[in-house]
Amino acid sequence: MATRRHLANAIRALSMDAVQKANSGHPGAPMGMADIAEVLWNDHLKHNPNNPNWADRDRFILSNGHGSMLIYSLLHLSGYDLPMDSIKTFRQLHSQCAGHPEYGYAPGVETTTGPLGQGITNGVGFAMAEKLMADQFNKPGHDIVNHHTYVFMGDGCLMEGVSHEACALAGTWGLGNLIAFWDDNNISIDGHIDGWYTDDTAKRFEAYGWHVQSVDGHDADAINAAIEAAKKVTDKPSLICCKTIIGFGSPNKSASHDCHGAALGEEEVALTRKELGWDYEPFVIPEDVYAGWDAKAKGDAAEAEWNKKFDAYAAEYPELAAEFKRRMAGELPADWKQFTDKMIADFNDKAESVASRKASQNVITALAPELPEFIGGSADLTGSNLTSCSSFKHVSGKEPGNYISYGVREFGMYAIMNGMALHGGLLPYGGTFHMFSDYAKSALRMAALMKQRTIAILTHDSIGQGEDGPTHQPIENTAGLRYIPNMDVWRPSDETEVAVAWVAAVERKDGPSSLVLSRQGIPGRKHDTADFEAIRKGAYVLSEAEGGAADVIIIATGSEVDLAVKAQEELKADGVKARVVSMPSTNVFDRQDQAYKDSVLTPGVKRVSVEAGVTDFWRKYVGLEGGVVGIDTFGESAPGGVLMKHFGFTVENVVKTVKSVL
Amino acid sequence: MATRRHLANAIRALSMDAVQKANSGHPGAPMGMADIAEVLWNDHLKHNPNNPNWADRDRFILSNGHGSMLIYSLLHLSGYDLPMDSIKTFRQLHSQCAGHPEYGYAPGVETTTGPLGQGITNGVGFAMAEKLMADQFNKPGHDIVNHHTYVFMGDGCLMEGVSHEACALAGTWGLGNLIAFWDDNNISIDGHIDGWYTDDTAKRFEAYGWHVQSVDGHDADAINAAIEAAKKVTDKPSLICCKTIIGFGSPNKSASHDCHGAALGEEEVALTRKELGWDYEPFVIPEDVYAGWDAKAKGDAAEAEWNKKFDAYAAEYPELAAEFKRRMAGELPADWKQFTDKMIADFNDKAESVASRKASQNVITALAPELPEFIGGSADLTGSNLTSCSSFKHVSGKEPGNYISYGVREFGMYAIMNGMALHGGLLPYGGTFHMFSDYAKSALRMAALMKQRTIAILTHDSIGQGEDGPTHQPIENTAGLRYIPNMDVWRPSDETEVAVAWVAAVERKDGPSSLVLSRQGIPGRKHDTADFEAIRKGAYVLSEAEGGAADVIIIATGSEVDLAVKAQEELKADGVKARVVSMPSTNVFDRQDQAYKDSVLTPGVKRVSVEAGVTDFWRKYVGLEGGVVGIDTFGESAPGGVLMKHFGFTVENVVKTVKSVL
Repeated sequence: MATRRHLANAIRALSMDAVQKANSGHPGAPMGMADIAEVLWNDHLKHNPNNPNWADRDRFILSNGHGSMLIYSLLHLSGYDLPMDSIKTFRQLHSQCAGHPEYGYAPGVETTTGPLGQGITNGVGFAMAEKLMADQFNKPGHDIVNHHTYVFMGDGCLMEGVSHEACALAGTWGLGNLIAFWDDNNISIDGHIDGWYTDDTAKRFEAYGWHVQSVDGHDADAINAAIEAAKKVTDKPSLICCKTIIGFGSPNKSASHDCHGAALGEEEVALTRKELGWDYEPFVIPEDVYAGWDAKAKGDAAEAEWNKKFDAYAAEYPELAAEFKRRMAGELPADWKQFTDKMIADFNDKAESVASRKASQNVITALAPELPEFIGGSADLTGSNLTSCSSFKHVSGKEPGNYISYGVREFGMYAIMNGMALHGGLLPYGGTFHMFSDYAKSALRMAALMKQRTIAILTHDSIGQGEDGPTHQPIENTAGLRYIPNMDVWRPSDETEVAVAWVAAVERKDGPSSLVLSRQGIPGRKHDTADFEAIRKGAYVLSEAEGGAADVIIIATGSEVDLAVKAQEELKADGVKARVVSMPSTNVFDRQDQAYKDSVLTPGVKRVSVEAGVTDFWRKYVGLEGGVVGIDTFGESAPGGVLMKHFGFTVENVVKTVKSVL
Repeated sequence: MATRRHLANAIRALSMDAVQKANSGHPGAPMGMADIAEVLWNDHLKHNPNNPNWADRDRFILSNGHGSMLIYSLLHLSGYDLPMDSIKTFRQLHSQCAGHPEYGYAPGVETTTGPLGQGITNGVGFAMAEKLMADQFNKPGHDIVNHHTYVFMGDGCLMEGVSHEACALAGTWGLGNLIAFWDDNNISIDGHIDGWYTDDTAKRFEAYGWHVQSVDGHDADAINAAIEAAKKVTDKPSLICCKTIIGFGSPNKSASHDCHGAALGEEEVALTRKELGWDYEPFVIPEDVYAGWDAKAKGDAAEAEWNKKFDAYAAEYPELAAEFKRRMAGELPADWKQFTDKMIADFNDKAESVASRKASQNVITALAPELPEFIGGSADLTGSNLTSCSSFKHVSGKEPGNYISYGVREFGMYAIMNGMALHGGLLPYGGTFHMFSDYAKSALRMAALMKQRTIAILTHDSIGQGEDGPTHQPIENTAGLRYIPNMDVWRPSDETEVAVAWVAAVERKDGPSSLVLSRQGIPGRKHDTADFEAIRKGAYVLSEAEGGAADVIIIATGSEVDLAVKAQEELKADGVKARVVSMPSTNVFDRQDQAYKDSVLTPGVKRVSVEAGVTDFWRKYVGLEGGVVGIDTFGESAPGGVLMKHFGFTVENVVKTVKSVL
């Protein structure tokens, strides 16, 4: 039987060899954390390489994602469907082993990591999801949700601000199921960290209410004891500070930043082999080492045992069991279409004049009983974002619920939501002022990259928000979000459009949505029922030009659609036939077929866009000869109505702009 | 003489009355922090209302900027040019008293605050600037740079991740000149913070190496003693935790979130007047209260004393004194034009084939001796961003220098740079991977809003970066930055363009610049000297079509310009006359007059854009009928050259796209 160190050295060898072959990557972290990983994976991690999707598996997250060869090594060695040929193509096109662990590429990668600090934050989301699901589904004698989230992280993750947001919340929430390991190696890419990282990290985490231990990260027994102790603390998250040597085993490059982000070099690889007593060729793992790592049989047995538990649960609580399966599969309730068709029709009948943020709250209130998977929240703007409703149970400190006050932590919120979505069983949405989506841009992008269903409620979406002034007034932000690949941005113009946007966002199976909503009131509008499908296409003819042959097409979104409709009236009086197109989602519209697009934006007809945001974005629809009504400077502080007029969002200016292009 | 409490009540009255008149704003924080502010401003703050620009003044920052009436009250009462009529127009269009404190609107506002956490982070920048300037200019017996930075902050600032980044660095840097006050009132907008904010903040800051005290924030003597003690600690930043009651004085709304973000209401305002014993009409301040606050005479005297000190310094060190004045005025060295003209010509003569990040390092190396105001840095990617050079002295823990390893803290870095730029005397630039400008988007936007000269060095600017994969490959990011009002984005295509971009960024007086640079090598190019001015215009004809009458214009930027030039050659062979336009800065080009723009992009001539980023952005130049070569999906992990080919960045594809539009 191979020793623990020998098993760990398999990680070191695979990591240095794969990085060497690619001549690109980060060998230092995998080599430094190999001993910790060996203990965790061989003695603690509850998982089944034969079924990476087992609902009650422990989650493992490599927050220091640049050390990706660590997780690839672990997955390969323990028996996941990640053959050596994939390891050999590390960092090559179409390899399962991408430069950073990418969700959906290699089985067993729970989340995409690399942007530092977000892995641990996702981890807090995973652990919170476990707690919420346990609260909702477990019954006395039936703990069908009962697993841990383990996170590896480096100094970089701990320097990033988002780690503060997430780890403070983990402490407040008392996430005893979360165990994080800090790779305390004193090295970051710029060198020895004394000049820029001198936090007393243990003390910092104690200040968050964590259980903190410190161990030698190369002492397997000490690591094992620390994990045992951490598991026993069930009301606090645990941090295990592991003193390690980066690049452990490399005689000349360990303990220095030389091994952080570059291959060791052929010569040093050979010397390291010798130092480690690893006498095998690159990418050759001896049978006894494979045997020491193989987790398939143990995983099958663990899953079988859980299946038995679940069967007993299903016998006693058949409805809950079915609901658990539905939610973990990400399926919608059986009556979803019927329910939402009626909901949309009902809102349309009422045709209320309300701010679109208020319309969103009305929709949330309507959907909440239908969607127990909702986990709502706001970054300390619940009363402004209108993200809560009376049926929610608010998370209160360590007590679970289904609505979270995240505090003033936008980035943390969206990255935690990503973790909850990845965990499964929950549908997270969260609100902030649209302006502060800037704080969270990277988390929103990560949701899009990982194809996760999260919903960002972004209110106070333009200068129309008023008195708070330019620091709170989005200008370029809606356009910027629309450019994120796979992000669906909606900026609806009335309650019916808001309802359709919400339904579309919930039904999305392959990505996030952002709902961009007004602070100020918007006139109500009753649509023909045919519009319901049309809205879903992202853009549609809201009001056809008289006679149908439009001289000009006015394209508007959100709170500015009303201006377009009024301008159409005025233009009619002047003999100009204008069509009004409402375009709540440019992203969704762009996916329609050409025939539909041409039916909305008839080729050759001049166009004018109206949106309280940057104008250049609209050139993709109005071309060089079209007109644009928008704003390309920062806003000002004044009542919203005053600002709208000041910056040219008037019927008069829309009419003038239309005439200027004819 | 008015009592301290009575003086503080003037702040409370002005704040509640102005918010009431505007029916918008946040009375709670100013009313809660009034006693702290009174002690600080009347007994400690070194400032001169008659000269808000005095170089050695203490800086005061209201990081919880929503409490803006606090700073407006202080400025008005102490004698700044902020008349009562401005207070009365709080939150109205063109008022000096915008909803949040806006830099450049009211004198004495040192930085724009509102986006939480950034004020304290700017404050760390201010304090670091003071330390750096003191190191560079003070001489034995001559401490001409010797002031404090005081920061007020609320729970929100402390929840935000960026506060972690900044305050950790402040501890590492030992900023004894920084004194922060935490408004510890247990309330944030969502209500009592127990459910979402349970940090032991004192312990957290001790973990950062701060000196921490706790006081009753309504006990003037205790506050005074704490400030005295904090000033005595010169090797650590100080945090004074002030237990306060939000909305102090309001009988029914204090200590609750009801007074956080809304006017108290006429009735409660009247009750509060009674409770506070404030018997004056709204916006009426009795003479004895004005007298108690007036800081003009004391300020004049303090500044006069400093002027004497400076004169003595100037007598002994005339060159340093002149240099100090130049740098604080933000002026460039006298020989700047001559120096940089030669530098650009020299780089052009060499016409090296290097990555544009390397070209940038060459320019930094050339400029460093000319610009002692440079304060360079990187968010732990010095060796990748190539932001350092041998002549820099690296900041090492508590030792100052002129190059900073910020650690993995992108947001913190750019917000600290904003503070250093606002302080004056320094020219901050900082590098990270372009992708991680997402973490710092809000700080970059704040630099643009505040018209500050900071320079972001954003390397690894496309899928060309290669193996790190989609988490590290900008797609929408360059377009997104270009949409920030007043941000100049440069994506230069060779060393000459890099040099011109750097010179333009340094010469900008009214805003930040972002230099977007390649990881991969780019072929060298020797320009005609006429190009130097043309590059400065943001776009220019790099290679005219044979004969001059172009059939098509190919617009390219950065690493893709070379593709355009090669495509031009191939097209020529096919009889297509193509002009190649290099467009290193769309923002700068957009500011040129129409005649110049038309000379580059001849109206009516078909256009094709080539840039490794989102294509929709380019519709503003190529229109609906033009062609686009770009990427609208996430990238992949593979060597950069492989990816470029995989995603269609080939001469062949450019040629094909050009032909498709003709």
